[in-house]
Amino acid sequence: MTDIRDNAVVQGATCPIPISQYPNILLAHGGGGTLTHQLIEKMLLPEFRNQLLEPLHDGAILSVNGMKLAFSTDSYVVNPIFFPGGNIGELAINGTVNDLAMCGATPLFLSAAFIIEEGFSMEELWKVVRAMHTASLHAGVQLVTGDTKVVERGKGDHIFITTSGIGVIQSEVNINPRRASVGDNIIINGPIGSHGIAIMSVREGLEFTSPVISDTAPLNGLVTSMLTVCRDIHVMRDPTRGGVASALNEIAASANVGIMIDENSIPVPPEVRGACEILGLDPLYIANEGKLLAFIPPEHAENVLKAMRQHPLGKESVIIGEVVSTHPGLVVMKSRIGGTRIVDMISGEQLPRIC
Amino acid sequence: MTDIRDNAVVQGATCPIPISQYPNILLAHGGGGTLTHQLIEKMLLPEFRNQLLEPLHDGAILSVNGMKLAFSTDSYVVNPIFFPGGNIGELAINGTVNDLAMCGATPLFLSAAFIIEEGFSMEELWKVVRAMHTASLHAGVQLVTGDTKVVERGKGDHIFITTSGIGVIQSEVNINPRRASVGDNIIINGPIGSHGIAIMSVREGLEFTSPVISDTAPLNGLVTSMLTVCRDIHVMRDPTRGGVASALNEIAASANVGIMIDENSIPVPPEVRGACEILGLDPLYIANEGKLLAFIPPEHAENVLKAMRQHPLGKESVIIGEVVSTHPGLVVMKSRIGGTRIVDMISGEQLPRIC
Repeated sequence: MTDIRDNAVVQGATCPIPISQYPNILLAHGGGGTLTHQLIEKMLLPEFRNQLLEPLHDGAILSVNGMKLAFSTDSYVVNPIFFPGGNIGELAINGTVNDLAMCGATPLFLSAAFIIEEGFSMEELWKVVRAMHTASLHAGVQLVTGDTKVVERGKGDHIFITTSGIGVIQSEVNINPRRASVGDNIIINGPIGSHGIAIMSVREGLEFTSPVISDTAPLNGLVTSMLTVCRDIHVMRDPTRGGVASALNEIAASANVGIMIDENSIPVPPEVRGACEILGLDPLYIANEGKLLAFIPPEHAENVLKAMRQHPLGKESVIIGEVVSTHPGLVVMKSRIGGTRIVDMISGEQLPRIC
Repeated sequence: MTDIRDNAVVQGATCPIPISQYPNILLAHGGGGTLTHQLIEKMLLPEFRNQLLEPLHDGAILSVNGMKLAFSTDSYVVNPIFFPGGNIGELAINGTVNDLAMCGATPLFLSAAFIIEEGFSMEELWKVVRAMHTASLHAGVQLVTGDTKVVERGKGDHIFITTSGIGVIQSEVNINPRRASVGDNIIINGPIGSHGIAIMSVREGLEFTSPVISDTAPLNGLVTSMLTVCRDIHVMRDPTRGGVASALNEIAASANVGIMIDENSIPVPPEVRGACEILGLDPLYIANEGKLLAFIPPEHAENVLKAMRQHPLGKESVIIGEVVSTHPGLVVMKSRIGGTRIVDMISGEQLPRIC
């Protein structure tokens, strides 16, 4: 930690985001893509730069009296708050549980802070709170502290929930996006895109023969069974906002490695593919809330895959690609018809307020 | 932790807040008074009931591998976001630092989650972020993880910030509102009401000869010097939303003890008193952001007071009352003219969005 700086110096500094280009916050600054990264990398990271904040992980990994803790926070602003397969309450529990699990931690304690719009239905609040309770029991975590604020009608949107969580990491576990290594197999635990399409189908009034249900689920149990067969998982990431494409791009950039994925191996449910075609979206950029990407040394990949497939949330686990020494920093996909193309970071907000 | 309950049972339960009386959330549900307590005690606490959530403390006190940790969260929705003496950024750091300090913890790590309204000025965001940085340096804490969400114009209000924090508690420290004991001296570290009046003066366009400045400050240093002279502090509480009156009522109810305070001894700056008279407010209910109430065994009170007065944030510390065996659960005040009156919990929102 540096010295306390002179207040005058702090006041006099210049905003690091070019004001002429972006004088105001756009929805895309919250979309999980290029503008979100610009905001984080140019303003927030340099300002709070410290060793713990650096890895751009799903959570921070802290050492307290020699014990390794994971600490994570997320605000949930999903719209609509009730959607096929869940609501904002369980999303807020599962999402933070998953961020801790992606650090290799056993999630233990959660906090919840509510920002409620005046006039929000008490009955709906109750449904949200009950869903949080059920989700916390399912995930095996305790909600131990909280806060409630109310803002005037028109100054919020029904309810926003911010959850934070603490988990414990076994000392020999070292999961970090920078550890992606050439040869690592990349595994996903099932078909992609359900959460984002469940939300979009409500917003756009789409109807399917079989409705798309959000995949929101706590992944800590699955992670425990993975760590049981392989302590040396290099990277884990849940591909939420920005989807699989953004998560892989972040990892490729963090570790400065190339990533090659195979379109044929990436499971996409037919109804998700259909909805993406109607909406002009790419499933690789659609948010998931019960999926994880794991980077596993090749000698452990089969064992991990086997363990994952024995878990209810990993039955459809598959290897979708690997880390390569060519094109460092880039994600490249072998397409279904045999060519290759670069899979970019999402540039704007494909789907605002998806989580 | 109890077993995972049957989903159907959870879905079928009835909302514990009488829907006929409060079908919708009111501003007063976030005001820190009776309705906030009804919401917490009837809906949130029974739902998440567990040993850690029970004490209605400023934060939860957790045991992780034998280590005592404090964990706290708060959403900041203050309006306006810039006010005399500070802005929402330093408030969000100091407020959570103080909640940890009130548990007797040394605050170490903070998270920050931003919910930004589309169109918010990038320059103002930058000012807020810099204020957070400066405040975290002053408090000696590290901001280690975060999140950024953007909501559409008209679905938020400039910026909301939720901070959570982790601190470590020495094993022999046991600060808890239930420990208030007959004979305890009640100390406050200085004059009350500045934060609330600073906010109100902007909102109401009041002008004073000497403007009222928010007292926002990190109290962890002051608490350290108090704990150095007395490990056996029974209770600490920062009288924020709802002011000194609400904080004392919460403690009286938690410990089921009587509290007697002396109006003559409670320091109120003349400009705060003047503004309260104009606005029809009682200084006892006005929010503070750099004040603490400490309940100290009488044999240690003089030493603690002396230590507090040597700290820059405790120069004007005074004893304002004591814990009594009469009127358990009630706060009673000897008035300036010699009578006594019951000081109630605030009933509605006296000052919405004060923090």
